[in-house]
Formats: sequence, structure tokens, C-alpha cells
Amino acid sequence: MPTTESATLQLACELMRRPSVTPDDEGCQALLIARLEALDFHIERLPFGEVDNLWAVRGHHGPVLAFAGHTDVVPSGPESAWQYPPFEPCIDADGMLCGRGAADMKGSLAAMITAVEAFVARHPDHDGRIAFLLTSDEEGPARDGTRAVVEHLRERHERLDYCIVGEPSSTARLGDVIKNGRRGSLGAVLRVQGIQGHVAYPHLARNPVHQAMAALDALIQERWDAGNAFFPATSFQISNLRAGTGATNVIPGELEVIFNFRFSTEVTADALKTRTEALLDAYGLAYELDWNLSGEPFLTAAGALIDAATQGVQAVTGKRPELSTSGGTSDGRFIATLGAQVVELGPLNATIHKANERVRAADLDDLSRIYTAIVEALFGPAASA
Amino acid sequence: MPTTESATLQLACELMRRPSVTPDDEGCQALLIARLEALDFHIERLPFGEVDNLWAVRGHHGPVLAFAGHTDVVPSGPESAWQYPPFEPCIDADGMLCGRGAADMKGSLAAMITAVEAFVARHPDHDGRIAFLLTSDEEGPARDGTRAVVEHLRERHERLDYCIVGEPSSTARLGDVIKNGRRGSLGAVLRVQGIQGHVAYPHLARNPVHQAMAALDALIQERWDAGNAFFPATSFQISNLRAGTGATNVIPGELEVIFNFRFSTEVTADALKTRTEALLDAYGLAYELDWNLSGEPFLTAAGALIDAATQGVQAVTGKRPELSTSGGTSDGRFIATLGAQVVELGPLNATIHKANERVRAADLDDLSRIYTAIVEALFGPAASA
Repeated sequence: MPTTESATLQLACELMRRPSVTPDDEGCQALLIARLEALDFHIERLPFGEVDNLWAVRGHHGPVLAFAGHTDVVPSGPESAWQYPPFEPCIDADGMLCGRGAADMKGSLAAMITAVEAFVARHPDHDGRIAFLLTSDEEGPARDGTRAVVEHLRERHERLDYCIVGEPSSTARLGDVIKNGRRGSLGAVLRVQGIQGHVAYPHLARNPVHQAMAALDALIQERWDAGNAFFPATSFQISNLRAGTGATNVIPGELEVIFNFRFSTEVTADALKTRTEALLDAYGLAYELDWNLSGEPFLTAAGALIDAATQGVQAVTGKRPELSTSGGTSDGRFIATLGAQVVELGPLNATIHKANERVRAADLDDLSRIYTAIVEALFGPAASA
Repeated sequence: MPTTESATLQLACELMRRPSVTPDDEGCQALLIARLEALDFHIERLPFGEVDNLWAVRGHHGPVLAFAGHTDVVPSGPESAWQYPPFEPCIDADGMLCGRGAADMKGSLAAMITAVEAFVARHPDHDGRIAFLLTSDEEGPARDGTRAVVEHLRERHERLDYCIVGEPSSTARLGDVIKNGRRGSLGAVLRVQGIQGHVAYPHLARNPVHQAMAALDALIQERWDAGNAFFPATSFQISNLRAGTGATNVIPGELEVIFNFRFSTEVTADALKTRTEALLDAYGLAYELDWNLSGEPFLTAAGALIDAATQGVQAVTGKRPELSTSGGTSDGRFIATLGAQVVELGPLNATIHKANERVRAADLDDLSRIYTAIVEALFGPAASA
């Protein structure tokens, strides 16, 4: 039990003591619900499959600002790799809060709660509505989590104007990076069919490797777009290539290629599919192609939320954050489909998904202050003045 | 036990009853030695490792004609796939000699022995020298077999002018094809090194698949030679391609490519190596390359042996054989390095290495006559006249 007066750190530790490995919530949401009910939030539990989800709203009219996050964590891996037990949070001599979920993202959840508590205490009759969208499946299949809740809200025609996702966006110091979008991710398994045979009789076979090389090189060389001010150019990467049985005298009958696009808002998944297939067709390949769209890109280029987040970070840390769309995908991709402005803003991500996950304890207090400043900017007296 | 008066078929069956799966000879060579000793051959057993080899010579001066072959057979596979037990030879109602080794190549060995018996009976004081070069490891690693015997003969400065390898060269009818050479076979394992990384951060990785595609396509498109009257153009085939761990979000750190050249006498293995490496270097690849030369090409373009074999086939079958260098490698590649004219001439190869291996019984008698005619043409009275 850390000896700290900080409400944020106390709540973070309470959450971290619960080994809520995906999709188990382990009572984390109940803990948060108790805090939100004390603030007069309207609570809706929205379980889908094995996943616990929570939608909570305070206020009855006006724009909606949602804090979004997840109570699940990735597994600890072997405990022997940890300096302290992964589910017994502590603050070490360097002032670091140690334990699974410290950075991704129970620290952020605690900071969100205490931020809203502080804001409501000062402005019980604030403008707009404050919401929480929480899930216990962000680290797993992410099918019955935020995505399902978003579909549910869409069916109910719920409004969502602003969303702060608590993902650990910072790289070198707290708030140095705000993610204002994410690239899309489109994967595929390509199977090029040939005719198997003996290497001594190539005229009786059709080598799918030979057939496909030029086409694959063309895919590699293709300029899919030039990116834009917020996104790098769309990238194509082959992650896996398989042909042959190991026998050195057999021409393989099939080539399997697994590739992935990380794409900007300058193209669509459909356009990438169409262009890929046109190119493969142009090379006369016999193939099957199984596409898997894991996320459309999203971008919050400018607006009230970006302004509020930028000013909030600057007010607390004294430095202006950088906007970035780099990195993998997050639940922001689902929330953005509701038309909301979305940013990801959270602690440093250096240790996430690793043994000895940790975050500077003081950063969580600062993060709570940043979140309060954002709500203040959007819904405080100055906002409506 | 087949009911036949044919000495060739009787000997073939005696050999086929011995389950001499590589490298076991199972007494086959002892059987042949007894026949050769009766003809006053000088016998040398040349065992290397687990392999039984035999070098036998009749005569003391003049050019040497060697019959070459192997007493080992490939395994039978499951006996249930066989109509008759694989090591209990029989002649079926269609006149086919059935059993493992009927075509590859105990039938040929029997025909060689009876051919020489017939020739010696007529010409006990023939010109030149008749030899047998037999091994029990042609179907296996082929390291301690013919290759080792040839090295031994080379060290002793033994002369070898003509060689008939009893491999089943015929395709549709006996003697329709004589192999007068074989392509060389040069294999390699190419490992292209990159830098592993996450597909979302390609700028931090170096994808070896992307780096190698254009270079591999250039190897595929390269015209290595145009072949010649006896050989098709040298062919390059990729048999195996491997990159990636199966994870779809990881840029692989290495690409492994296994390829093989089947090459004509218009290029050398060294030239192929040099040109391949120059091409890979031109594309700036970081790579390792392990070469494996399994056989230099050989060619017997014309000469006394081709003439004798062609005329022998025509005399017995009434049809002129076609010369061919197609197909895999054989022990002829080793023997040719002694400077000998080499042909491969044997029964139909349709069933070799399969269940229910079989050969037309009458073909083995005709093959014996063809072999006799060849010896007659080279060493008979007409030859020296």
C-alpha cells in the first residue's frame, strides 16, 4: 500500500490490485461506478459476451465529452521478471508507481475520475454532459468492447462531441505528445496458385513464386498516397512469405503472402483493395485474397478539443504538446465513427506491455490536472462566457 | 518363381528377391561376381563406408567399355499398395515382370550380364576390355558409391573410354530414348538479412522481403544461356521461400530462399555463382549464400559409343532412338569426369520409385540383345576389321 495522500494514486493502486487480465474486469468498473454514482452520474452497464462495459453520463443537455478507457490489462508474463509483484502496486524509491496497468491504463482511469471529481466539486451545474465509456476488452479481440458500445450508442442516436482516450500517448515527458488520429490498418492473406512439379521439369509446372515476384515488387514500389499534414504516406509491408515444402527439388504449388497496409485519410480501405486487385490482375496471377480491415483511419485535425487539450497540457507542464498520428490502432478508431473529436492523452508509454510496467507517480497527479483543465475549458464558466 | 527359359529374367528375379534397399547390397554383387568370375573377369571389391562397390575387368589391353549400375533399390513403401509382394518377383498375365527393382535397375544388371556372357561365348578373345562398375548406393547419398569408385580409379590412372549406365532411359517403348548427357544441378540457400520491426513503424525496420523482390525477379528473368543442340537453356527455380513468424504485425528480420539451377554445358557452376552474386550485389542486398553443387553437366555429343548404341537399338527394335539430356541427375555425371563417352540406356521408367514397379519381361531380353550388339560393334571382329 503506497503511503500517499494523492487520491489519484490511491485509486490507481486500488484498480491495479485487481488482476483484470482481458476480458476480466475483476471489479474495477464497480469501483469506478461507486465514485461516479457519488457524482450523480447516470450509470449503464452494457455487458457484451464476456466483456464488461460501462456507459455513464452526468448532465442532461448540451455537448457530450466522454472519457474513454479500459479496465483490462495484458498478462504479466513470468512474475520472476518483475522487480515487484505485478498486481501489488507500490511506489519505489524513485517515485515510480510500479505494477501492471500503471501506464496502460489504470493510472489514466484514476486521473479521469479525480479530474471529474475536482471539476464537479467546483462546478456542480456545469455546461454540457460528461460521460465515461469503459470496457474490459481493449487489449484482446476488441469486438465486444468499445466497438459494441459504440454500435449500441449509434442505434440509440446518442450524441458524442468530444472524447479523450486515456491511452499512454506520452513518449519522453508527460503530455509531450497528443495523438489526434490513427492510421487505418488493412491486412490480407494472398495465396498465389501455381502448379507443383519437379525442378528438373519446369515446363510441366508453374512456379507461383516466379509468377508473383514482379507483382509483389510492384505492390512494394507503388505510391499509395503522399500522406498529408497529419499522416505519413500509406505504407505497405509484407510480414510473411511461404512457399515450398522444404524439399529442394520441388517447384511449389502455392505461394502465401501476408501483408498489411497502414493507411492515411487520403485513401480508403476500398480503394486500397481495388488497386491491389487491379495490380495483381494486371500481372495475370491466379490468386485468392482474404482481406481483414482492422480499423479505418481517423483524424481530429483541429477544433475545440484539440485547443482545450493543448492548452491544458501547456498550463500544467509549461510545454506545448506535439500532435501525432503515429503508432498502432486504439479504440479511438471506433469512437471517431460517431463523428466525435477524439484525442488520446495519457502517461508515458515506455514500459507498457512489458515486465516492470511503471509510471512516474507525480505524472498521474499532473494528468488529473490536465484532464480537469480540459473539462474546464470545454464546460467551465469561461467556456460559456 | 517365374516359369521362363530366359537367363536374363532368371537372373533379374534372383536379384529382385534380395531386398537390397540403399545402402544394403544383400548379396546381389556376390551373385554377379560368381557370373563374372566364370567369364574370367578380374574382380575387385571396393567397399567405402557402408556401401558395397564392385570393379570388374575382362581383358588386358585396349579401350575399356564399362557397364555401370546399382544393386540398391528405393524402399517399397507400404506393401498393401502392391498387387504382388515387392520382393517376390513374378511375371503377370500381361507378361510384365513385377517387383521392386524390375526397372530400376536389376533388370538392366541381368541384361548386362547375359549380354556379356553371350558376347564372350562368341568372342572369347575380343578386342578391348569389358568392365563392370557397380554400387549399392545410387539411390541414397551417392557419396560412397560410384563417386568414390571413380575417384579411386582416377588415382590409379585407370582408363575408361566408354560407359553404358543401365538407368531406365526409355519412355514409351524400349530404346526410344538414349540419354547422352545430363544437366548439371547447382543448389543454394540464400539468406537475406533485414532488420525486424513493427509494421506500424517501417522506418525503424528494414524489410528483407521488400529488399529482395526485385533482385529475385531479376534472377528469375535472367537468361543464363540459350542451351545448345543437346541441352535446353539453363533453368533457375525457386523451390522454397520463408519469411516471417506468422505474426501479421511484424516486419521479418530475414528472408530465406532456396533455389536450384539445372544447367547446360554452355555455362559452368562457377560462372553461375559469380553471376548470381554480382546480381545480388547490384541490388545492394545484405545476404549469405550457401552453394551446393550436386553435379556438373556432362555430354556425349557424338562418337563410337553413340553410334554403337544407336545402331544396337535400331537392329533389335527396328526404330532409331532419340538422344536426350532431360531429367534428373545420375551416376553418369561422376563417370563422365574420367573422360569417358557415357550413355544411359535401359528399360521404361514409367513405374520406377512407385508401388507396382514393373517392366515388360520381353524388353529385358531385347535389352540384353541391344547391349550385346553394342559390345559387338565396339569390340567384335567387325570393329577391328
